Amino acid sequence: MARIAVMGAGSWGTAVGKVLADAGSEVVMWARREEAADDINTNHCNGKYLPGVVLPSAVSASTDPAQVLDGAEEVVLAVPSQTLRANLENWVDLLAPNIGVISLAKGIETGTLMRISEVVAEVAGLPEGQIAVLSGPNLAREVAEGQPAATVIACTDAARAARLQDAFSTRYFRPYTNNDVVGCEIGGATKNVIALVCGIASGMGLGDNTAATLVTRGLAESTRLGVALGASQTTFAGLAGLGDLVATCTSPLSRNRTFGERLGRGETLEQAQEATNGQVAEGVKSCTSIVELSHRAGVEMPLTEAVHEICHEGGNAVEVAVRLMRRSTKPE
Amino acid sequence: MARIAVMGAGSWGTAVGKVLADAGSEVVMWARREEAADDINTNHCNGKYLPGVVLPSAVSASTDPAQVLDGAEEVVLAVPSQTLRANLENWVDLLAPNIGVISLAKGIETGTLMRISEVVAEVAGLPEGQIAVLSGPNLAREVAEGQPAATVIACTDAARAARLQDAFSTRYFRPYTNNDVVGCEIGGATKNVIALVCGIASGMGLGDNTAATLVTRGLAESTRLGVALGASQTTFAGLAGLGDLVATCTSPLSRNRTFGERLGRGETLEQAQEATNGQVAEGVKSCTSIVELSHRAGVEMPLTEAVHEICHEGGNAVEVAVRLMRRSTKPE
Repeated sequence: MARIAVMGAGSWGTAVGKVLADAGSEVVMWARREEAADDINTNHCNGKYLPGVVLPSAVSASTDPAQVLDGAEEVVLAVPSQTLRANLENWVDLLAPNIGVISLAKGIETGTLMRISEVVAEVAGLPEGQIAVLSGPNLAREVAEGQPAATVIACTDAARAARLQDAFSTRYFRPYTNNDVVGCEIGGATKNVIALVCGIASGMGLGDNTAATLVTRGLAESTRLGVALGASQTTFAGLAGLGDLVATCTSPLSRNRTFGERLGRGETLEQAQEATNGQVAEGVKSCTSIVELSHRAGVEMPLTEAVHEICHEGGNAVEVAVRLMRRSTKPE
Repeated sequence: MARIAVMGAGSWGTAVGKVLADAGSEVVMWARREEAADDINTNHCNGKYLPGVVLPSAVSASTDPAQVLDGAEEVVLAVPSQTLRANLENWVDLLAPNIGVISLAKGIETGTLMRISEVVAEVAGLPEGQIAVLSGPNLAREVAEGQPAATVIACTDAARAARLQDAFSTRYFRPYTNNDVVGCEIGGATKNVIALVCGIASGMGLGDNTAATLVTRGLAESTRLGVALGASQTTFAGLAGLGDLVATCTSPLSRNRTFGERLGRGETLEQAQEATNGQVAEGVKSCTSIVELSHRAGVEMPLTEAVHEICHEGGNAVEVAVRLMRRSTKPE
């Protein structure tokens, strides 16, 4: 029985911990808050993020990273993109030299414009073959409830990807392997921004035709960026591209979509943030990095630019939408 | 002012008639039922299919195909795929020799396995450059309400595609040109089947992760079929592929999706048909032709096969779903 550390006890980290335990591993979770660790150890649940979900007895938790990482063969990073570097710097001396890292983070680091696996490689000093990325259409709540879902595990080391495929395979969770780490990470980061656009359109009262058009054109611009950065186009047509995008853009459970709806109904960024317990959606932060990346790569991303304009330059959602619609007609 | 005939006064034919009139043409619609023609001529509306939508005064209607087609420079075919041949045979002597045809039909002809533009070419004896296809994420109700939507007009004659782009361009409707008629037609036919699958899953109580996975894997198998038949892969990543698929699979307004939900809740084909005024969803009919096409092309389409099994071979939806989920894990 392998021992796997999951660093972060939010909804997705907890759901992944459950998957790994259901697949046969011993899982130790790191929680920032004492109450979360207690809840997992005492009640076998994470009431704040996944109320009603019972965790297997093979899942335990601690707030002490040294205890969590002791003897771990794999470590799953389940902390937000923008705090990952600072967290990992605290943990790096606790990692076994041959440890495998699996990143769940979906974002681009602000400032450095690095993908999260690049941040991990730099901070932990690990070769890229030891770093994998897990990404797909995986709303945490549904996975935790054992609903059938598929995902992608990407790693440049194919043998390692296959081992992780086994470690994550359950009756309800079906991982596919892929060697395109860049594509999976760019797909995961850009989808939050496109979900914001879909939310904004929905908040403005626009319907399913508009949403489908935004998903299509959003995937096209994400693919352009990914390909310019060395990714494979087919990754974007797959579960970590299209699949994740569709789940995030259409589900009422998606935070980015819900946040966008508030903006589309005319709320300011501050009002939307206040209404969501002070949290700002990941896409609001990452749209700036993605716009910068697209300029560096020489790729046009009109929808991402629109989100950036609405979120950070005081752009009016209705005016931005009308401008997008009025561009001259052209071949697809 | 061009005169354009729209043959068929269902919801999509009527919405397209409105678009053409709003874009500046004189539109004459052929309606099968006298009441529909009267409603359009007297009340400027089609109360049966698009209640509450006011049609421009440039839209008129008749039940007499000779009157409708007299002097028409373009004819839009807005009748169901499976009755198109019989209808067109009645109209063929009324068509001007240089008339342009635009097909809205989404399906594959049962028995012959022909795409609808192939049926048109055969029956009307027209060269392929005179036949165009319009397809995209276009729920009729939303287009008729003037919500922003985009679409694809495909024709092997690029100049003709560009002229049609103008004829269909309004403030709210944005056509893109494409020369891939095969891809647009295969995308349009297969999406109905995938929408049935999504409906079945939803009726079984499965959530957004499953739906997103089905959309992704469904697009992959549709693309495989299209490419084997000579289509371009990029068409499937565009509005007539992914876009139309997402709209049809996620909207509660989609008939195929709604029909699938009934099957997923355990209703028989007959019960579902009875509950929808005796109509059977297009995907129920076309899945058989698509399965046959895929066998001829040597392409695997597990989701389409599953729909065929459930609809026409008495397959149990739950058992079929479990079998799909249990296939051995593999690279994406």
